[in-house]
Amino acid sequence: MYFIEETEVSKKTIAPGVDIRVISGEKAQMSFVSLAPGSQVPMHRHPHEQIGVVMEGSFDLVVDGQRKTLGKGDTYVIPGGVEHGVVEVKTPSVALDIFSPPREEYR
Amino acid sequence: MYFIEETEVSKKTIAPGVDIRVISGEKAQMSFVSLAPGSQVPMHRHPHEQIGVVMEGSFDLVVDGQRKTLGKGDTYVIPGGVEHGVVEVKTPSVALDIFSPPREEYR
Repeated sequence: MYFIEETEVSKKTIAPGVDIRVISGEKAQMSFVSLAPGSQVPMHRHPHEQIGVVMEGSFDLVVDGQRKTLGKGDTYVIPGGVEHGVVEVKTPSVALDIFSPPREEYR
Repeated sequence: MYFIEETEVSKKTIAPGVDIRVISGEKAQMSFVSLAPGSQVPMHRHPHEQIGVVMEGSFDLVVDGQRKTLGKGDTYVIPGGVEHGVVEVKTPSVALDIFSPPREEYR
């Protein structure tokens, strides 16, 4: 249980072209988000804190009305309740989003 | 503040050949851990939950007496209070460790 096997990974499609692979602890949760070019994550908000890093590719993230083009290694911190979304995916991309507390609907 | 600049990253050396770059939220914290071949993270424990992923390279992680060789993309979940350490770094490696709650000494 310490070392996660693929069978323990929860998989979901959260928007067209946006697939997530989720690994959950009790206090935090990792969501590996694969984004196809042209896909979007509609603007939304949730009470869970979200921090993350771009692992591959490039996309435009909007947080609280601020838009920025992010690339590999770029990081972000989105406090709970703040509106955000991915508005433009330029190349096939992977982001790692971390939620705390975990999002129960992603387990 | 949503999009993290390099000047906001906290940097520390936690063992010989083991350097961390830390980005903190209020509830979770990302620590990018660079491990040189031959370095080690001595066995230790802390009350903070730790989950993580290998971003580059390969190393042996021991958790609660269980040793496993991990490579790129492998993930782990270490509940608070469980002893763990890196006992063998085979190639230059980077792990992303996520702590919840954040470790105050890493901010």
